[in-house]
Amino acid sequence: MVGLPARGKTYISQKVCRYLTWLGIKTKVFNVGNYRRQLHGANLPHTFFDPHNTLGEQQRREAAAAALEDMMRWFRDDQGIVAIYDATNSTTARRRWLCEKLGKEDIQVLFIESICQDEELILANIKDVKLSSPDYAKMDPDEAAVDFRARIDHYKEQYETITEQELTYIKLINVGSQNIINQIQGYLESRIVYYLMNLHIAPRKIYFSRHGESQYNLAGKIGGDSNLSERGRLYAVKLPDLIKTNLGDQDLTVWTSTMKRTIETSEKLDYPKLQWKALDELDAGVCDGMTYEEIEQKYPEDFANRDEDKFNYRYRGGESYGDVVLRLEPVIMELERHENILIIGHQAILRCIYAYFMNYSHEDLPYIKIPLHTVIELTPKAYGCEEKRFKGMLSVHQVALS
Amino acid sequence: MVGLPARGKTYISQKVCRYLTWLGIKTKVFNVGNYRRQLHGANLPHTFFDPHNTLGEQQRREAAAAALEDMMRWFRDDQGIVAIYDATNSTTARRRWLCEKLGKEDIQVLFIESICQDEELILANIKDVKLSSPDYAKMDPDEAAVDFRARIDHYKEQYETITEQELTYIKLINVGSQNIINQIQGYLESRIVYYLMNLHIAPRKIYFSRHGESQYNLAGKIGGDSNLSERGRLYAVKLPDLIKTNLGDQDLTVWTSTMKRTIETSEKLDYPKLQWKALDELDAGVCDGMTYEEIEQKYPEDFANRDEDKFNYRYRGGESYGDVVLRLEPVIMELERHENILIIGHQAILRCIYAYFMNYSHEDLPYIKIPLHTVIELTPKAYGCEEKRFKGMLSVHQVALS
Repeated sequence: MVGLPARGKTYISQKVCRYLTWLGIKTKVFNVGNYRRQLHGANLPHTFFDPHNTLGEQQRREAAAAALEDMMRWFRDDQGIVAIYDATNSTTARRRWLCEKLGKEDIQVLFIESICQDEELILANIKDVKLSSPDYAKMDPDEAAVDFRARIDHYKEQYETITEQELTYIKLINVGSQNIINQIQGYLESRIVYYLMNLHIAPRKIYFSRHGESQYNLAGKIGGDSNLSERGRLYAVKLPDLIKTNLGDQDLTVWTSTMKRTIETSEKLDYPKLQWKALDELDAGVCDGMTYEEIEQKYPEDFANRDEDKFNYRYRGGESYGDVVLRLEPVIMELERHENILIIGHQAILRCIYAYFMNYSHEDLPYIKIPLHTVIELTPKAYGCEEKRFKGMLSVHQVALS
Repeated sequence: MVGLPARGKTYISQKVCRYLTWLGIKTKVFNVGNYRRQLHGANLPHTFFDPHNTLGEQQRREAAAAALEDMMRWFRDDQGIVAIYDATNSTTARRRWLCEKLGKEDIQVLFIESICQDEELILANIKDVKLSSPDYAKMDPDEAAVDFRARIDHYKEQYETITEQELTYIKLINVGSQNIINQIQGYLESRIVYYLMNLHIAPRKIYFSRHGESQYNLAGKIGGDSNLSERGRLYAVKLPDLIKTNLGDQDLTVWTSTMKRTIETSEKLDYPKLQWKALDELDAGVCDGMTYEEIEQKYPEDFANRDEDKFNYRYRGGESYGDVVLRLEPVIMELERHENILIIGHQAILRCIYAYFMNYSHEDLPYIKIPLHTVIELTPKAYGCEEKRFKGMLSVHQVALS
């Protein structure tokens, strides 16, 4: 990362880390601020960051080196694929040092510079994130804000935007209103750059719900393309009110799969609708239309394998959760680009989407509980998401069916 | 488009047009040069393009206006979605004129500027493309090159690179070594920009072959995941030699689907290999494993519908060609990024990929002949692709099976 304090570097680092982890690419953030606090304590005054403060300068360099050493160890010993070095890296000299150190270990470097000239946005970021940082745990908020702005000024004194034409970089200017992309070549670099281009930092919420109970749910069968049960239809009828009551009168766009049970669930909703084939339920292959008991009887070995590694288990002729994550990737990209989307989806699909926003591991993803007849609201924040759940109907079937 | 002559504007226009058309987005290129030739004749000397030539200036403006009028008519009357206005548009004033004209009709404008400082590349482009242009049909090549360079100089005199910060644009600098992206917002804009970022103009070839004949091919059944037949295995054995003989000793990477018949076909090939689930054959849903005769008997109505609109016909519980195009999109993106790929694929899949490179319409795509036991070589050129076919074995089954 490259950029002055309060330019969203940590937010971007966390988002990229979650996105790549979700795709199955081992990724870790190394935040130099955390190393600094560990080595030299929190609550350091802005004078610590003054470039004319020799001791401060030296101690900050120590923290940067410690984080880098740890990062290189992680690449070597833990088979890491993408490390995000979250620090200001705001001088040409510092970036040269990074390239030299990493070049020796054959680690490719992609710089992500965040530039923001919108003073209001910076102020909002300081209030939202920085004042609750461990650096200011015991300080009066107004005093903290003054100190933090002084800290930014120290960095500004030395800040050099990237002009090194031989470097691989992306500059994100004023929250994506302009991007400059230089020397991007590999597949991973290209994926990360595309993701960053789609990342809008405007505050917003994401809503989703499973379809109402279906005929197959009632019968305990998986897959298929059955209609809603009577209780499912009742949920569809109640859904508009459930949404009005809890979400208010805002504009929404409803995304469904191409399957009857999600389309029927959205029928009474008076919003623009879009059908995505990529939102169709996990394909159970030869097991489509069977109950779990039947699968256990007919394919006992498969059933056992599935329990052992549920994320990677692929139904014969069907899909695994891993396959579903890959086909959902364009949906995630569109979710990042849009505001106020309500997805009426399927259990396995919503597990994957929920895992992306809530940072669940591949091991835990297939066991996430997404109950029937409930609207889930996620509000992305700097370090994760806030969650609310709105229940549509009391459901005795719920536990048995999820 | 924005840029001096011989900066690849027409190449880029054609590629974007083919890509969007393939995705089902109605797209058309309006080349101002063609209007100029129609209105004022070909074989115009470079002095026609001199900005101090008042008559020339006026006639070129006429051609620009005629193309723009046609383009707006196409949007209005023919339900066009994306038009590519292929001209130099190299002054701020010209771009303002475009924005005003198009803004009035609620047409959003995305400028694609191609900047190239690599003199060798420009020269190659002049030799490859420009000297065979109708403008120089009857001229000596050396004389034509001199004239064309003089024409470029006239444009250079007035050229203003985009600096208008309120415009939506992408600058492609030195064949993608740097990209600057400004105010990109919509879905389509974002797709086009990502495509352009992945577009490398380095000369290269693409190779593909269907798998060898499978057990299901022999039995006349569709779909399934059967092994190769005896003849199919013979093709797999002969394939390395067929490739060496016709392609020479170059490095290749082999892409297969996750199905047995493509993996077995690639078994004897000594190159790095990659399995793509996105390359799996079109899913025939409930018809998987049936013969066409059985389908006709069991689902006579479906069978008739399929004949009527083969591209959009979706097998019950399965896929249409349209679905396949969407899931192949990441494959196409990777194909554009890489060199020397050999795909061992399936008939429907290769039809879609072939259609992308050869610019087949959705109507014709499902009827493209991709014979068994044949390697196809495509060489992308400015206005399309050159094709060669290398036959592995004489095949009496061929026609019956494709």
